[in-house]
Amino acid sequence: MKTNAATNINCIIRLIQYKNAIQRLKKLGFIKVFSDNLGDATGVISTLVRKDFSMFGITGNKKGGYIVDSLLEQLNRILGKEEVQKAVIAGAGKIGTALMEYQGLRNEGFEICAAFEINPQKFNSESRIPVYHIESMQEYIEKNVIRLGIIAVPTDAAQQVFDTMILAGIRGILNFAPIQLKAPPEIAVSNVNIAMELEKLWYYVKMS
Amino acid sequence: MKTNAATNINCIIRLIQYKNAIQRLKKLGFIKVFSDNLGDATGVISTLVRKDFSMFGITGNKKGGYIVDSLLEQLNRILGKEEVQKAVIAGAGKIGTALMEYQGLRNEGFEICAAFEINPQKFNSESRIPVYHIESMQEYIEKNVIRLGIIAVPTDAAQQVFDTMILAGIRGILNFAPIQLKAPPEIAVSNVNIAMELEKLWYYVKMS
Repeated sequence: MKTNAATNINCIIRLIQYKNAIQRLKKLGFIKVFSDNLGDATGVISTLVRKDFSMFGITGNKKGGYIVDSLLEQLNRILGKEEVQKAVIAGAGKIGTALMEYQGLRNEGFEICAAFEINPQKFNSESRIPVYHIESMQEYIEKNVIRLGIIAVPTDAAQQVFDTMILAGIRGILNFAPIQLKAPPEIAVSNVNIAMELEKLWYYVKMS
Repeated sequence: MKTNAATNINCIIRLIQYKNAIQRLKKLGFIKVFSDNLGDATGVISTLVRKDFSMFGITGNKKGGYIVDSLLEQLNRILGKEEVQKAVIAGAGKIGTALMEYQGLRNEGFEICAAFEINPQKFNSESRIPVYHIESMQEYIEKNVIRLGIIAVPTDAAQQVFDTMILAGIRGILNFAPIQLKAPPEIAVSNVNIAMELEKLWYYVKMS
């Protein structure tokens, strides 16, 4: 992922993990949390939790506790979660369709506005999310000012879809196609290669 | 991911990427490839390709080329791809169901043998892959000597499913639940947190 030099990607990842842990603890009735709680829930030491928080100006009370609601509010503001997080998907195959309906994304405030397919007819009846022809993707992204795109098309089509998304104004892309996309430096790209993750695991299992 | 100290995880990831690139080039009719080709396809410099290969005893011909079939054979042997790569899935929700039918896993030689669900009735009719009750998972894994597990259950159930899988003999786990699993050091775990990837991207898009 490309980023400005000052931002520590690992710190942001931890902030997201803390936020998710706090959301779970809130559901369990927690009103206050301690850095030890968040360290335990995310697998880091408590001093790192406090250091990460203080980097973003979040301070606890004298006893080292944080008020859950206030902490969540501050983390959501830092992570830009107060705005509507709209995204589009290219490709409505197995993975794309699963993401369209994935509760895990809705829980985190993401709204998949539309999906785009080379053969959209077969999907429209089933889904709550509109599925349009891939040729209308650029216009839709421009018109609706979408900044996040998910690529779930076959490998051969991925680079072209990527280029079209960027041309239309997409700035962050989650790519499920198992290919190295050629991306300009100002575009953030995260690759999720499920088959490769399994291949890595398989290698380690065979070696152990 | 836990591993023995001598193995460089990044090198293994690159070997998998080279192998996938070679497979694509083979489909395009390539009989010979050069380290430059593989560097271009995977985004690394060609000297690193040659270094990675020589680390595993793979050598090219005098002109720096590699015969595609021989190279694929050697990489598949190193990566353990010559054996049947069986895996089970826990959780047949949106993500689990998508993975059951995901061509990208089959293309890489993975066979999803079965899925396990707390409510298996609703899935059996649709899928080619059997969906059993989660309570039969341990016995199935033991009986069929499965070593790879995929966790796609809700967050609250993930640790218990993980513990059961390990007890049954699973050694490598791909985890889609957005939670930090408590894992013994000999077990390889890869986490795929789709919502978190989008949250990271969103953060960078907001900052840029």
